[in-house]
Amino acid sequence: MSKIVVLRMGHRPQRDKRVTTHVALVARAFGADGIILADVHDRGLERSVRKVVELWGGPFFIRSGEPWRIVIEDWHSSGGLIIHLTMYGLPIDEVLPNLEGKDLLLVVGAEKMPSELFDLADFNVAIGSQPHSEVAALAVLLDKIFKGSELRKEFKKWKLRIIPKNKGKKVEKKL
Amino acid sequence: MSKIVVLRMGHRPQRDKRVTTHVALVARAFGADGIILADVHDRGLERSVRKVVELWGGPFFIRSGEPWRIVIEDWHSSGGLIIHLTMYGLPIDEVLPNLEGKDLLLVVGAEKMPSELFDLADFNVAIGSQPHSEVAALAVLLDKIFKGSELRKEFKKWKLRIIPKNKGKKVEKKL
Repeated sequence: MSKIVVLRMGHRPQRDKRVTTHVALVARAFGADGIILADVHDRGLERSVRKVVELWGGPFFIRSGEPWRIVIEDWHSSGGLIIHLTMYGLPIDEVLPNLEGKDLLLVVGAEKMPSELFDLADFNVAIGSQPHSEVAALAVLLDKIFKGSELRKEFKKWKLRIIPKNKGKKVEKKL
Repeated sequence: MSKIVVLRMGHRPQRDKRVTTHVALVARAFGADGIILADVHDRGLERSVRKVVELWGGPFFIRSGEPWRIVIEDWHSSGGLIIHLTMYGLPIDEVLPNLEGKDLLLVVGAEKMPSELFDLADFNVAIGSQPHSEVAALAVLLDKIFKGSELRKEFKKWKLRIIPKNKGKKVEKKL
């Protein structure tokens, strides 16, 4: 089973709390194994994501404060691919066949990314060549990688689980 | 050609500026016709989204301050469907066949949604029954409705357009 990890660049703890939380929750909900916040430590965000894992299940890891170049070098040296999500990249449909069965580090940015990253990445990939959202780009990429099967993923050690229904809310609890 | 409009609920101009901007940009980039921010006026957000349309093309509209019940009633009375995105709803794969060729009002929320909305919606739809992000949910829903073709959409009257490439950035300008 190949590994998929998200590397979140340029996180600013105060300003990006909500958007980075969305990125982390999308990574978990859409089947990634974990997320690394590059360069800066953010214990508060780590805690709130771990709280979600504790309640809704895992496995899913979050780490922060690791230098981005080292994360990328390590990933490369264990044979994985670096996929940089950017509106300037190649259309996802062109790139997708190259990703199958590979360990993938999905790099999602802040507004300004080091230009070096474009060179270090094996693929620079666009989810549409339009300005939108790294949260959306990550979700759609993972949905395409897993061909929609991630939406039926069963998490382990959950305390809360939703029973889908068309009206109202139904939640199973193991607390 | 059927119409697709996003209704953003519970927008708080200060606190939600970034997330609502992501929602609006996703609506545009993934092929919706426009977005309505329910109940509250936010001229600043309207302006910044219109600026994106002016630069990157359209058509795409944004309006704000319209009471949500009236938007929903109007949509219903012209024969369209109300699709409420919620983690408690039915899996998208089950609902998708019912949406084909219909005018769709896609309702995306804030954390707390009026419970009435679950009843007013024709379908309450989950993009995975896990906590994540309304930005992601909207993107994946639109991607499934358009079967990926939205990522090749050509916008009109653009001043900026990206020429996809694997390394670096290439932007065509008509300024």
